[in-house]
Amino acid sequence: MDQLRKDPIVGRWTIVFSDKPFAPSDFKIEHLSHKEATCPFCYGHENLTPPEIQAHREGATLPNSPGWSTRVVPNKFPALRIEGELDRRGIGMFDLSGGIGAHEVIIETPDHSKDLADLLDHEAEKVIWAYRDRSVDLRGDKRFRYIMIFKNHGFSAGASLAHSHSQLIALPMVPKNVHEELQGAGLYFEYKERCIFCDMIAQEKADNERLICENSRFLAFAPFASRFPFETWILPQEHHSDFSFIRSDDVTELARILKDVLKRMKQVLNDPPYNFIIHTSAIEQRDREDYHWHIEIMPKLMKIAGFEWGSGFYVNPTPPELVAKYLREAKI
Amino acid sequence: MDQLRKDPIVGRWTIVFSDKPFAPSDFKIEHLSHKEATCPFCYGHENLTPPEIQAHREGATLPNSPGWSTRVVPNKFPALRIEGELDRRGIGMFDLSGGIGAHEVIIETPDHSKDLADLLDHEAEKVIWAYRDRSVDLRGDKRFRYIMIFKNHGFSAGASLAHSHSQLIALPMVPKNVHEELQGAGLYFEYKERCIFCDMIAQEKADNERLICENSRFLAFAPFASRFPFETWILPQEHHSDFSFIRSDDVTELARILKDVLKRMKQVLNDPPYNFIIHTSAIEQRDREDYHWHIEIMPKLMKIAGFEWGSGFYVNPTPPELVAKYLREAKI
Repeated sequence: MDQLRKDPIVGRWTIVFSDKPFAPSDFKIEHLSHKEATCPFCYGHENLTPPEIQAHREGATLPNSPGWSTRVVPNKFPALRIEGELDRRGIGMFDLSGGIGAHEVIIETPDHSKDLADLLDHEAEKVIWAYRDRSVDLRGDKRFRYIMIFKNHGFSAGASLAHSHSQLIALPMVPKNVHEELQGAGLYFEYKERCIFCDMIAQEKADNERLICENSRFLAFAPFASRFPFETWILPQEHHSDFSFIRSDDVTELARILKDVLKRMKQVLNDPPYNFIIHTSAIEQRDREDYHWHIEIMPKLMKIAGFEWGSGFYVNPTPPELVAKYLREAKI
Repeated sequence: MDQLRKDPIVGRWTIVFSDKPFAPSDFKIEHLSHKEATCPFCYGHENLTPPEIQAHREGATLPNSPGWSTRVVPNKFPALRIEGELDRRGIGMFDLSGGIGAHEVIIETPDHSKDLADLLDHEAEKVIWAYRDRSVDLRGDKRFRYIMIFKNHGFSAGASLAHSHSQLIALPMVPKNVHEELQGAGLYFEYKERCIFCDMIAQEKADNERLICENSRFLAFAPFASRFPFETWILPQEHHSDFSFIRSDDVTELARILKDVLKRMKQVLNDPPYNFIIHTSAIEQRDREDYHWHIEIMPKLMKIAGFEWGSGFYVNPTPPELVAKYLREAKI
């Protein structure tokens, strides 16, 4: 019989096809070509983006010129704008505010042909440093409550440019999904006086069925109630609630395990579209005992339709135990 | 400046592009052809579906043979199965149960070339009756807590067959999204002692900016904090919490307004893919003062990417006031 599995943090149910699971070859990966006459993220086209906020440059090269290895720029088509006041107000029973926020793009490499999985260790580390540096800087803006870092890879995952990049959005309110996660973890802590993610790490290690890979600082596994086939979470093995206070040696190990997981997915699923999101606590809530920052990687292999939209149920045709096996056995 | 708008029921924020809104022609509608050598929902192919659960037949025709106008069959590839026991249990910190439920398909017409918007009034009414009859029947199964009725129209909205149909899934637990909605509406009722949806109807009528159409029994509007461009809600004007107790004259008027809205969308957006979902209260909670059943129609015009997945924020480039104007002015 198929299974219904419950996410212990937010209470979401997933229908897991345990009887007739889908193999990687059962998913149709759409590889759509990105038509880009002139890529704004390549060397020599720095003037096609807004002026850079920061860049990592080895030699003495000028801002907004070639010579960088990572480059952070404001999004040319921002979802939210940095200038202005929040001006929260009501219209009858409704609430609104000004569309204030920061929307930045982290260009991960000058090489148009490489994605994050292909970078050398020290190149991938610079991407993590860029995430961290921008987080630390934007925390200083009192208008912001949350900093969300995410990546859309591939057309069906919402990427509009093929050149490898991630994004950061600073928000003037703690988003609903983050609030739910903080609340769920808080409830568990209240009951157990332990971090739910730390407990999850302990059980995943003990069960040893869903582990994908680990290093001295991080662990990657396919979560028990995965919404999506090949969903993978990466957690620091030690308890830390806030990504922006990541330490230097953790940056090194995070870059390694992230590349490791992405390479495995690329090999097993033939370069699938995916989103990843860094889940971290809200700006004002440094050092929470009950929350544990982590990365959720979600390959986009299936369509989300009315049932999922209406219910919050998901249908996952590949059990996480099988996903872990495929990814562990990947030849990378 | 763009706006941030908050859904008053579940607290979800949407970024609304009020400065440079998208017009209908700014959305790229993907019209993919469905290759169906033999459509299992057409007359003469009744043996290609599991045996029918019910059908509306004018003359004296046999079950599972032509002559029907609507036909309900079990889904051939069900997300959940009707046979078996729930068997809820724990594995360490995790929770699971058997994948028990009902998954049915409502074939709306024998005519392969027509969709719900094209049906005659009395044909569309039979579809609503089929929704209602199956709801009433499945409520009797003590294993179920919620009945979700939804429609996926068009390939990018998740439809796997082109022949017009809707689906019903009976679930052994109240889904997360429904629970949130019931909770949000409950909180408002606790504070105001009024139904939040009744208040919304009153404000929409007073503001008169987001109304699309109405009849004696139902109202359609573009909600203030629409997640998606051209999102439209249909609500009974009178307070009713449970769709499955819909009365005969309401069925007639619901069929009319649903067709009306779908026709307007079809005309303005050139047959967009969409999902609609009937939001109704949980089986055990008949006659809630604080909840109001309704239909949410969500055209699928944009990709949902990492930001939306991670945050629960949405980015809507067409303000609902403009959507209502486009849809009101549609020539149908």
